[in-house]
Amino acid sequence: MEPAMSVTHEDRAAATTQAPVPDNSPDSPAAVRVSFDTEPGRYRHWRMSVDGPVATLTLDVAEDGGITGGYELKMNSYDLGVDIELHDAVQRLRFEHPEVRAVVMTSGMDRMFCAGANIRMLAQASHAWKVNFCKFTNETRSGIEDATSCSGQAYIAALNGTAAGGGYELALACDEIVLIDDGSSAVALPEVPLLGVLPGTGGLTRLVDKRGVRRDRADVFATTAEGVRGDKAVAWRLVDETVKARDFAAAVQRRAQAAVERSNRAGQATPGQANGISLTPLHRDIDGDVTRYDHLRVEADRGAGTATIVISGPDGPPASLDALHADGAAAWPLAVVRELDDAILTLRANEPGLGTWLLKTEGDPAAVTEVSQFLLAHREDWLVNEIIQLWKRTVRRLDATSRSLFALIEPGSCFAGPLLEVALAADRQYMLDGEFHDSAPNTREAPPAVIRLDEFSLGLLPTASGLTRLGVRFTGSQADLDAATAAAGQDLEAREAARLGLVTEAPDDLDWDDELRLAVEERASFSPDALTGMEANLRFAGPETCETKIFGRLSAWQNWIFQRPNAAGPAGALRRYGTGQRADYDRKRV
Amino acid sequence: MEPAMSVTHEDRAAATTQAPVPDNSPDSPAAVRVSFDTEPGRYRHWRMSVDGPVATLTLDVAEDGGITGGYELKMNSYDLGVDIELHDAVQRLRFEHPEVRAVVMTSGMDRMFCAGANIRMLAQASHAWKVNFCKFTNETRSGIEDATSCSGQAYIAALNGTAAGGGYELALACDEIVLIDDGSSAVALPEVPLLGVLPGTGGLTRLVDKRGVRRDRADVFATTAEGVRGDKAVAWRLVDETVKARDFAAAVQRRAQAAVERSNRAGQATPGQANGISLTPLHRDIDGDVTRYDHLRVEADRGAGTATIVISGPDGPPASLDALHADGAAAWPLAVVRELDDAILTLRANEPGLGTWLLKTEGDPAAVTEVSQFLLAHREDWLVNEIIQLWKRTVRRLDATSRSLFALIEPGSCFAGPLLEVALAADRQYMLDGEFHDSAPNTREAPPAVIRLDEFSLGLLPTASGLTRLGVRFTGSQADLDAATAAAGQDLEAREAARLGLVTEAPDDLDWDDELRLAVEERASFSPDALTGMEANLRFAGPETCETKIFGRLSAWQNWIFQRPNAAGPAGALRRYGTGQRADYDRKRV
Repeated sequence: MEPAMSVTHEDRAAATTQAPVPDNSPDSPAAVRVSFDTEPGRYRHWRMSVDGPVATLTLDVAEDGGITGGYELKMNSYDLGVDIELHDAVQRLRFEHPEVRAVVMTSGMDRMFCAGANIRMLAQASHAWKVNFCKFTNETRSGIEDATSCSGQAYIAALNGTAAGGGYELALACDEIVLIDDGSSAVALPEVPLLGVLPGTGGLTRLVDKRGVRRDRADVFATTAEGVRGDKAVAWRLVDETVKARDFAAAVQRRAQAAVERSNRAGQATPGQANGISLTPLHRDIDGDVTRYDHLRVEADRGAGTATIVISGPDGPPASLDALHADGAAAWPLAVVRELDDAILTLRANEPGLGTWLLKTEGDPAAVTEVSQFLLAHREDWLVNEIIQLWKRTVRRLDATSRSLFALIEPGSCFAGPLLEVALAADRQYMLDGEFHDSAPNTREAPPAVIRLDEFSLGLLPTASGLTRLGVRFTGSQADLDAATAAAGQDLEAREAARLGLVTEAPDDLDWDDELRLAVEERASFSPDALTGMEANLRFAGPETCETKIFGRLSAWQNWIFQRPNAAGPAGALRRYGTGQRADYDRKRV
Repeated sequence: MEPAMSVTHEDRAAATTQAPVPDNSPDSPAAVRVSFDTEPGRYRHWRMSVDGPVATLTLDVAEDGGITGGYELKMNSYDLGVDIELHDAVQRLRFEHPEVRAVVMTSGMDRMFCAGANIRMLAQASHAWKVNFCKFTNETRSGIEDATSCSGQAYIAALNGTAAGGGYELALACDEIVLIDDGSSAVALPEVPLLGVLPGTGGLTRLVDKRGVRRDRADVFATTAEGVRGDKAVAWRLVDETVKARDFAAAVQRRAQAAVERSNRAGQATPGQANGISLTPLHRDIDGDVTRYDHLRVEADRGAGTATIVISGPDGPPASLDALHADGAAAWPLAVVRELDDAILTLRANEPGLGTWLLKTEGDPAAVTEVSQFLLAHREDWLVNEIIQLWKRTVRRLDATSRSLFALIEPGSCFAGPLLEVALAADRQYMLDGEFHDSAPNTREAPPAVIRLDEFSLGLLPTASGLTRLGVRFTGSQADLDAATAAAGQDLEAREAARLGLVTEAPDDLDWDDELRLAVEERASFSPDALTGMEANLRFAGPETCETKIFGRLSAWQNWIFQRPNAAGPAGALRRYGTGQRADYDRKRV
């Protein structure tokens, strides 16, 4: 068993993808442009098949399909590109295949389910690349769990071979794990003993917090490179069942059928709306530092270190539920959130120097509210539910983004419904009090900005902790939370929004430009690392869950270890793995 | 305002203290021997006075009292030694002054409460020193909160001057914060803007999770070097009250009196048992690699990288509650836990190379149970309560210790009552099945080992998350938790203990030595950093609290930042602070 673990690759067929050049120099710029565009016809590493209510995702990694040179994706090891395809597949199953109620995840290789992230890639990747890769991988795994809990699509890991490292972590993200009993295939987390790093894409957290593995057994397991199999794997709760090869397929199918039967997915409820919609390619025009999508644009200002994300509001709600289904991916509430998700991922991967994101909207808040009311009225429809859940996951990506987020609420903006959650996810909210009196851009002729709270902020889009963003915001005061909640449905101008604690600052026209400029300049003058650490603490007041522990506790420890010479130094375990030389550890505990 | 922040100093009067030589070389050994022995007569930085039910702790740092050269403790900035005194004072107020129901913490300086940890010290300290210092500081601050919640001693921060950085974090650990209104004194967390690190001794966590400061305001506050004062500090929940200088003393006294009146402290309930007991100096004989306390010894094996901690059980319970009070610090249940606490702190600070601790006991489990029953029967007594609470805090120190912990349960051991919690805090429990059949050491002639669960494991010593250690252990199975709970009071031999999931392995005499040797050798072969990260995740299954978030999420991010060039590199903010040169940041976000 070679627990190969890989970190970065991508669909080479994607037009905008270029090979990244990861490196260990902290000063060198990101030399790669990563694209998250793909679709099943272009997958190199996964196969997706759908048979009625059961889909199968088969991992069969193209060894030469790594996103960079310098390593081969042997033993079904993966890198970012493999995970980009997986993320795409999970997403499409929800939107394009509403009939699917169970997903079997298995391997096209003999005796190897997945060997985890590719180690050669990990060894050569920069610190930033490793961290960003792990974050995306974690988000994709959380997305798998979300598909079950919110869409009735259960995932069954059918381990027809060994699942090691990130391979077993992928299985841990599934609802059920079936391991073949062939006398050799095992589940394993060899990161600590072999690589000097953690099973950091959810492994340690899910072992004890999701599967309820006893902590002392988890300690033994996570330090046993060869892993555990057979009855012991079941007794230790590492897998749900082990099955002889001859019965394996049937056992997996039984579990899939059982999952189908208990699914609450509202797939085929309404005739004529039973069919999936197609997630068509996103339109994207890149013009220098401006990227324009259909409903969103991103403006980079490299001097200031900012990315301004401007989201355009809708013209109005869909004419009917039928119309929404007919419009599919072109419908505003879905189109715009896909664009926002892509903008977040693209900026994270490709623009580390843009440390502050300015979040803006343009449009009619009343039209957003109409869309919001439409979605709320039809939330039992499977497609509407998927759209709402994608908003939820996308705003959570903002919560987990290591950039400073400022929402700018100006005349002409439309922060209502789900767009207001984008503002509430920000570290600060600046709202202009009154109108712009100068004669500058078009939007400056609009009436005073308003924000409007509705069900999207009151429960539809919970944070990873389970609290709403309002709940996190007002963790210190139930009275403040009640007052804000009572203001739902009202158009709130700046002073009222400030009085209710919904915005941070409400400068008037005289102060607006200076105050924002100073805030942005000040942010750019601070240590980017300290900001990342600060934001990762202040954004997560309140309870913690498996998901928040993975992005907080586990990821922070892994990032620390990724910086330590024992892992990443020239004599560290990551760099020496496979060279025949043992890692040379500084034995002192910190 | 100079937010001086210091990291390491100590009571120079302490006989065993030598000056540490912090450095930034990851390879150099710890050149300092830190002692935690002190007492009020030897304090150089704090003054403790007691006036009936109100005590006052006054911070007046000796500038030349730093534990190393290279910096002066200006502006009431602190280092490890200042915090060792504070820890000692908080402890003594609980044991020596049961009449105290409110503690006022204030400063002996004009216009400066405390400027936080000394920055020069932080800049020159090694990574390991910074991390260990912060951990102890965090434990001391948690101990302040514990004094209120479990002993009815409320802490009131009387900020008669500016509280910056760690100084304000100290105030945040108090129950109430009163800030003088003198037109200049402020509260501030300048770590992010000035030093490129986090307010990592609880600051960020307590802002949002304890005081309920709105997260966007917390963002503004934690990036505003000059801090906040006056009405805004109250409105933002940063302090409870601001008071003009002429009314300040009276306002503080009013709050102290109110705290006295609402205290549930059972201080003077029983005549004859109202007086405090004296925390006499610990006896400690150091003989090469063996340190002997009265009831505990520590054996270092530098070749194996282990420290064996052997705790001796009691002869029997105190004859009566009066006898316990009369024995005071000499009574076994208090004496042994003070020794254990000291051993933990001393090993952590001075022996980073001993990465695995082997936890053993010697004695009669029936006698431990008698002590346990005695304490349980008298838990309403203030002294008994203090003893139980000190056990709680001490076992939590084990939870937060960055060493691998293996409990070895052999014939002749006495893992019952509070000692069993020491075993359950370990990462693994090895219990010998049967007797030793060879003729080696004395203890090897004893009958088979037993363990015995009682109320100490069922609720008296909760972990920082609020769960019992059994609850954390059996987070995956209520049935397993119920079965273990039902076994309380029984002597459990190895097979039964293993069946109930209370021990990890139960080898017999034939395998014992080899299995342990291999386990210890294997542990020593792994990356110490990966082990630290793994243990910090596996030990904390279940919910998180303010305390666990400080030791998990916040500390891990701070440790990451402490490794980053933007903070600790030659051009980083910590190193450049005060030089007149600005830090040279790599602006890329990770």
